[in-house]
Amino acid sequence: MKAKGYWGRILHIDLNSGEFSTDTLTDAVARKYIGGSGLGARILYDETTLETDPMGPDNPLIFAVGPLTGTRIFNSNRFEVVARSPLTGIYGEANCGGYWGEVFKNCGYDAMVIRGQSRKPVYLYIDDGEVRIEDASSLCGKETFEVDRYFKDKFGKPTEAAVIGPAGENLVKIANIITDGTHGRAVGRCGMGALMGSKKLKAVVVRGTKGLPIAHEDRIRDFMKKLGPLMNEDIALALKNYGTSGGVEYCEDIGNLPVKNWYQGPWPEGAKKISGQAMAATILTNNYHCGRCVINCGRTVKAVGGPYDGVEIGGPEYETIGLLGSNLLVDDLPAIAKSNELCNRLGLDTISTGGVIGFAMEAFERGLVTEKDTGGIKLLWGDGKAVHAMIEKIARREALGDVLAEGVCSAADQIGGTAREFAVHVKGLEPPAHDPRAKMTVAIGFATSNRGACHLQAFTHDFEEGVVIEDLGSPALTDRFTLEGKAENVFRMQNLMSMFDSLTACKFALFGGMTVKPLTEFLNHVTGWDFDDAEFMKTGDRLYCLKRMYNIRLGISRKDDTLPPRMLVHKRGGGTNALPAINILLNEYYRYRGWDEFGIPSKQRLSELGLEGAV
Amino acid sequence: MKAKGYWGRILHIDLNSGEFSTDTLTDAVARKYIGGSGLGARILYDETTLETDPMGPDNPLIFAVGPLTGTRIFNSNRFEVVARSPLTGIYGEANCGGYWGEVFKNCGYDAMVIRGQSRKPVYLYIDDGEVRIEDASSLCGKETFEVDRYFKDKFGKPTEAAVIGPAGENLVKIANIITDGTHGRAVGRCGMGALMGSKKLKAVVVRGTKGLPIAHEDRIRDFMKKLGPLMNEDIALALKNYGTSGGVEYCEDIGNLPVKNWYQGPWPEGAKKISGQAMAATILTNNYHCGRCVINCGRTVKAVGGPYDGVEIGGPEYETIGLLGSNLLVDDLPAIAKSNELCNRLGLDTISTGGVIGFAMEAFERGLVTEKDTGGIKLLWGDGKAVHAMIEKIARREALGDVLAEGVCSAADQIGGTAREFAVHVKGLEPPAHDPRAKMTVAIGFATSNRGACHLQAFTHDFEEGVVIEDLGSPALTDRFTLEGKAENVFRMQNLMSMFDSLTACKFALFGGMTVKPLTEFLNHVTGWDFDDAEFMKTGDRLYCLKRMYNIRLGISRKDDTLPPRMLVHKRGGGTNALPAINILLNEYYRYRGWDEFGIPSKQRLSELGLEGAV
Repeated sequence: MKAKGYWGRILHIDLNSGEFSTDTLTDAVARKYIGGSGLGARILYDETTLETDPMGPDNPLIFAVGPLTGTRIFNSNRFEVVARSPLTGIYGEANCGGYWGEVFKNCGYDAMVIRGQSRKPVYLYIDDGEVRIEDASSLCGKETFEVDRYFKDKFGKPTEAAVIGPAGENLVKIANIITDGTHGRAVGRCGMGALMGSKKLKAVVVRGTKGLPIAHEDRIRDFMKKLGPLMNEDIALALKNYGTSGGVEYCEDIGNLPVKNWYQGPWPEGAKKISGQAMAATILTNNYHCGRCVINCGRTVKAVGGPYDGVEIGGPEYETIGLLGSNLLVDDLPAIAKSNELCNRLGLDTISTGGVIGFAMEAFERGLVTEKDTGGIKLLWGDGKAVHAMIEKIARREALGDVLAEGVCSAADQIGGTAREFAVHVKGLEPPAHDPRAKMTVAIGFATSNRGACHLQAFTHDFEEGVVIEDLGSPALTDRFTLEGKAENVFRMQNLMSMFDSLTACKFALFGGMTVKPLTEFLNHVTGWDFDDAEFMKTGDRLYCLKRMYNIRLGISRKDDTLPPRMLVHKRGGGTNALPAINILLNEYYRYRGWDEFGIPSKQRLSELGLEGAV
Repeated sequence: MKAKGYWGRILHIDLNSGEFSTDTLTDAVARKYIGGSGLGARILYDETTLETDPMGPDNPLIFAVGPLTGTRIFNSNRFEVVARSPLTGIYGEANCGGYWGEVFKNCGYDAMVIRGQSRKPVYLYIDDGEVRIEDASSLCGKETFEVDRYFKDKFGKPTEAAVIGPAGENLVKIANIITDGTHGRAVGRCGMGALMGSKKLKAVVVRGTKGLPIAHEDRIRDFMKKLGPLMNEDIALALKNYGTSGGVEYCEDIGNLPVKNWYQGPWPEGAKKISGQAMAATILTNNYHCGRCVINCGRTVKAVGGPYDGVEIGGPEYETIGLLGSNLLVDDLPAIAKSNELCNRLGLDTISTGGVIGFAMEAFERGLVTEKDTGGIKLLWGDGKAVHAMIEKIARREALGDVLAEGVCSAADQIGGTAREFAVHVKGLEPPAHDPRAKMTVAIGFATSNRGACHLQAFTHDFEEGVVIEDLGSPALTDRFTLEGKAENVFRMQNLMSMFDSLTACKFALFGGMTVKPLTEFLNHVTGWDFDDAEFMKTGDRLYCLKRMYNIRLGISRKDDTLPPRMLVHKRGGGTNALPAINILLNEYYRYRGWDEFGIPSKQRLSELGLEGAV
């Protein structure tokens, strides 16, 4: 029996044979794994083994939405992509806003599992349940913006396309998948674009108009009326006015912003020049919002005059500014916007790209790589033009770009010497612009995130000083550097975030009051289920643990739950007071998770979570 | 010009060609690198590269003595073996007491460098400068005791032999080199027996009678008279009465003793049964001392009655009791003595052997290996017979023994799963019986020792609570768990220990008052030099740094200066209060060393130490 709020249908596509089929998503499975990354993780766990080559045909590329996707609740229009990560070799997931998620759901599927590898370049076209695999030879090598435009023109509204750029085609391990063209919403992390490229799949184009299978429309309407007053106006307004990059100066001030490959502390003049406030005062032309959003954190920017005259693009996010700006000592907003544009056009994750270029700049400074290696680029700190040239080389796998295209962990191994000392990653994933030395929850979050250095699986960075989620069940945190309460907070937040990524919803909805109880209530209205808070949070625990078990099968354990050497020393010039006492935090965290001292879930906890089979 | 106190001659032997030669050790080189491990490290650094195969013919096996070796000063009769370690792949050194060192020096050489690989089994015979390479076919497969007896009978007094057992012949990576037969003094650590085995060199037999080339015999006589009152009677007497294992119960009490593969805390009843005091009350038959010793910490034991009736051997040291006793939950002294005897006969390092068997017992308990893997041995905690069977299998490379023969790091990689979580080693070397969770100087010492987890390169474990070396220049330490002063103490102690290992002298001489000033004075009397304390300690710094530079060439840096996961969690049942804050200690330690944040010596410090070439 299918659940309400779901289509109950999973689309399976085999690019080897060109065949496709559907199978059923039962109510029982939906209730247990929800959708999005939870459902994706379950499929991935069942359909792969230790031997599955992350870049091979047997690694499924899973697109999944959830019961909340595209519903009237705000910030619900996201989708998840799940696979064994080509970049890290372990569990991979990445999610994306924009409009693709809702349109895909309107095609009548809850998830799509793409296997095999096509011999020739193809794209998928899905239109209200009709599925076609089409030749994409004419699109080979084309940039994401152009391909997006092509499909929107070709198929008309409400077409959405998830597209890879030249980077994905070139199997660059930090390649992303781009939706919504020039605005550039990305399935950013874990190199999903490389896996799509290995399948010779240039795009997944959707055109769905079915409407959603919701249980209690009336209750939802009432519920939405109730929700209004819950909005945290301060944060929401700041996000609207200045976007995510409104926090750049604050983050620099508290030592949270990466500066000079995570090496330098203070950089106030630079931060001021690249903040969201500076953006609003200079190149900002408009806001952008994903489907169903009430916040509008997205930006559109355009440089006028100067070397980047006419560059017009979705404005750089906080993470992009942190990694492609401060991390490289680039203090020129139009130059950062240009880097952002290049990454989006070519299909590169801006976080990982900034990470590997920061690493490369340090290697250049230290003489471990030279102009001979870079193909003539003087890879100097703060040089925007050098960054742009390097981005191109990564996407095309030219010169040093071919090394960096493998991600920072592999690049350091290839370069050798002391390179591994300043290759900043956890479990192979380059971190976003949040410094674990500035916030102890970020430290434990990075160390234990299932996909490597990730701020979104715990999403605690906005909640370590004063902002409290009342119904989370975790004590309020007040001091960033103390250890007390941090492990419990991360445990609970990771569980809640597992739910967000499965439902699927944008985590900024928290600032709209969409915390545990409202989310639970809304889920019940959509599905007709009777979740209480406890089942809701336990489900998050289950999903988190399932992903952990996937990683454990691949050899991950406590030894991998750590931080890179660079993040365990003080920054130059100050900016952080404490270094993460990672082992102390880890011991406490494992106790909350019911994991043993190696970080392996106990049989008892697996049984409590209904995961007996996952061992 | 040769220095006084030296012969000024280094013997070079090529086992490929069967040829040998000597070259000169100048005064300048001797003063800069002293002898023993310092001189050995200089030779190793110069004569090998990154590519040198640790088990290949180009890896030189270097035997070296120093200016104090065999002089009238007490505890001076040690020698050093230096090579790229077959076990760890990085810098390797191991030293040994007994009588071999002085007899070798009396042959008229300061060091011997053995290169190449013989096609057939051979032994070296050196008699007052005469060198012969002799066929050893008839000795193949024979145990160390028998071979030692054979040479002593064959050549008569003062013959000494350094011999490998079946383990070394079978290229077991934790094989040692044994001198003085049944008493069993070992070149224990870093798998030097495996390298000797790879050269098909069964023994190095020395018979030297030349007398020593000392500068000021008269001053030495006066000096020795002065020294008497400096003896720390308490410690020296305890060592005489109960040997090194007199500290077993105390070490258990403070959480310093390894119990159950470093997993368990308290084990008081067990510790009581295997202590030096228990030994003295039961199986002890006599004391044993190395040449020139005034302490007599060695033991001779004999079991009477019971399953080990008649086992007679050099009594187990503290480290042996820790690793082959408490670490395996074996609480039966005769059974431990039997394990010790087997290791000595077969030529296995007791520390590493106890380490790998503890690891294997845990793997067995956790079901990662079974009786099928062990060749039928039920590898249960506390079962002495199982330990003996496993020792035999390691030496013969049979069944699981073939895996364990590679050392715990490689064994964990081979076994997979969570095995790396409880494979206890630093840089590939299994630790001796001192727990870094019990003493912060041990933590930083293990993490930074040039040969991996080693207590002898810092030798701080006896000096962290009250026992003070007055002229070390480091503040007295009082609390084992605090961080203050620990990095500085380890820095100074490592430098002093580098001198001990180069002079060469036993570190227990410290309890006889042989601290910085007396050692400096004695060195001057022997050589005619004019060292002051500062030059003496700076020389130690130089030697320590030289070994570090050797490792850096092989890719070692801060990322390797750490502790294994097992040593960063609390023991079961308590027994330690704090976990090592290793990164904080490391930052401070690097500052004392003049190393950068990656653990790389600065150009300035290298220049100050006269090591400009070593980069």
